[in-house]
Amino acid sequence: MPTSKHSFHIHRDQVHLKWTKKQPPALTVSPGDIVTFDCIDGSNYQVTPQSTSDAILNFDVSLADPVFGPVYVNGAEPGDALEIEVVELQTADWGWTAIVPNFGLLQKEFEEPCLKIWKLPEGRHDSVNGEAMTGVGNRRSERLAVFNDQIRIPLRPFMGTMGVAPGDDGEYSTIPPLETGGNIDCRHITEGTRLILPVRTPGALFSCGDGHAAQGDGEVCGSAIETPMKVTLRFSVLKNHDWVQSPHFRSPPESEGPRRVLPDRGSYSTMGIDSDLLEASRKAVRAMIQYLGRTRGLSRTDAYMLSSIAVDMRIAEIVDMPNHAVTATLPLNIFVDEANGTTCSDHP
Amino acid sequence: MPTSKHSFHIHRDQVHLKWTKKQPPALTVSPGDIVTFDCIDGSNYQVTPQSTSDAILNFDVSLADPVFGPVYVNGAEPGDALEIEVVELQTADWGWTAIVPNFGLLQKEFEEPCLKIWKLPEGRHDSVNGEAMTGVGNRRSERLAVFNDQIRIPLRPFMGTMGVAPGDDGEYSTIPPLETGGNIDCRHITEGTRLILPVRTPGALFSCGDGHAAQGDGEVCGSAIETPMKVTLRFSVLKNHDWVQSPHFRSPPESEGPRRVLPDRGSYSTMGIDSDLLEASRKAVRAMIQYLGRTRGLSRTDAYMLSSIAVDMRIAEIVDMPNHAVTATLPLNIFVDEANGTTCSDHP
Repeated sequence: MPTSKHSFHIHRDQVHLKWTKKQPPALTVSPGDIVTFDCIDGSNYQVTPQSTSDAILNFDVSLADPVFGPVYVNGAEPGDALEIEVVELQTADWGWTAIVPNFGLLQKEFEEPCLKIWKLPEGRHDSVNGEAMTGVGNRRSERLAVFNDQIRIPLRPFMGTMGVAPGDDGEYSTIPPLETGGNIDCRHITEGTRLILPVRTPGALFSCGDGHAAQGDGEVCGSAIETPMKVTLRFSVLKNHDWVQSPHFRSPPESEGPRRVLPDRGSYSTMGIDSDLLEASRKAVRAMIQYLGRTRGLSRTDAYMLSSIAVDMRIAEIVDMPNHAVTATLPLNIFVDEANGTTCSDHP
Repeated sequence: MPTSKHSFHIHRDQVHLKWTKKQPPALTVSPGDIVTFDCIDGSNYQVTPQSTSDAILNFDVSLADPVFGPVYVNGAEPGDALEIEVVELQTADWGWTAIVPNFGLLQKEFEEPCLKIWKLPEGRHDSVNGEAMTGVGNRRSERLAVFNDQIRIPLRPFMGTMGVAPGDDGEYSTIPPLETGGNIDCRHITEGTRLILPVRTPGALFSCGDGHAAQGDGEVCGSAIETPMKVTLRFSVLKNHDWVQSPHFRSPPESEGPRRVLPDRGSYSTMGIDSDLLEASRKAVRAMIQYLGRTRGLSRTDAYMLSSIAVDMRIAEIVDMPNHAVTATLPLNIFVDEANGTTCSDHP
């Protein structure tokens, strides 16, 4: 891990549940400083490795998506941007994925609660409050988590939530993302990426949380592989960047990320076409669930959760009025039989 | 090029402007047959290499997006799916990109017509009606088109429009995509990809058109690098696939595509956050236009057109009610200075 002149740390009890500039700083640092955050998972301890779907039935949304901080960065002023380099990410040795009633893209079609507990593999680094923490680290190999005996998921950890305080006096839920960041759930902000956020209050007041071990673009069922996370970040201030009005990020070349352990086997995509972009997205996911059931024998519930973890939602076209086209794309290397050179019997 | 027992060809004058099962077949083929289509561009000859923006001012939308065919495939029946393998794509030696008034994602912000004519480079293969056609071909190198002296675009040709006739008696414009395909403008359906469409009428009645030499996911300004295209396709019938209700496609591994000539230099992304997914997409593009102006000195018009050609629109999260997050992602290797190892002076 890169070293800093000072060693800074945000603990699990330095937690808050609202984005507001009234939250007192938990720590003050200077540009260039590195801070390590110990973050519990997005359920805020409501799900544990021993939980059953009862934990989802009794889930209290008002406790969800805790964030850790805030960090006051000296010299950050409104009109500047805060740059956050993701130096290192360590997941816990377990995670969870759930279908939560009244949440998720297809909430009207999936009304029953469902919980999957994952064991996250190998590479123990560290422990926090007795929980083993497992690193990924630049240039190390991807780790794989087992979905079932036919499907494994490469872990690509990131923080679902990274944000700074809004400029006004309001108190905002940590669940919806804001233009100051927050729960943006962007799977591409992995190790080596630099996130850039607009500063709206002196010191910026940065917090993060909602560790994800793997997720597809969209997070369609409403959860990723949720996990406690230890994350190390480096802060910089970009002066006079008032043209940055929403989260931006710069990603390194693929070759600088963790070494891929699963060779590319191509992908399978389904399209949703509709005059409403959100409904086009729903149609693409429904078609992917249908595909996974027909060709891979997955239950609808498993297919929906797998889509949230491994399927990328992209906008193919957004201009051919009145209809939009959204794609849901599944990498085929998650299937053991594809890796062995045999493909599923039920074409395509 | 792969050989077929028979050589089939669809000519430029075998053209239609409506999706309808009443359109008489231009050709009948059997499963396994290969057909080459000569397609004029999506403007239907309204733009030529000599055109100025007057061509856009006088653009007749009712003539746009001609499709070529239809091909009747023996044995294809309603309830089956038609599989179309993209065997080879050849662009013309020129192309165009335009901002068309009252069209495109940011149409209220870009009201002036604008036209850019491209020269598309090297690798002459063939000629159709006196127009040089240029191939890409599996395992060959990418070609680069020049946007300006600082920016070059790798060509990744595909057909913007591929579709079959709808099942009802209607006549549908070729501009909006339908669940039977059509103008899906999906840049991932390149050489080696197999598109799968639901068959709704005997013989399927497949047509294609709207050649694109390069495009980003979304085609945000409303046009790609539009070009006449010669495309070679192989048809198969997947019996009893009534669960395929929209376009699906299977993509080969990256390593089977054309060899990349520009090394990966990472990417820069902007996010749009809004309770409306379409508005979130607009915000992401506006932020990218701002970034390209601030850090690369591009005019708003150039930045909007470049976004349509090179920026990918993805859905980061679609579940964190009430706000959605959309990313606009620009590969940095299109910039000559990034390739030389120097980055733009205006950080980030």
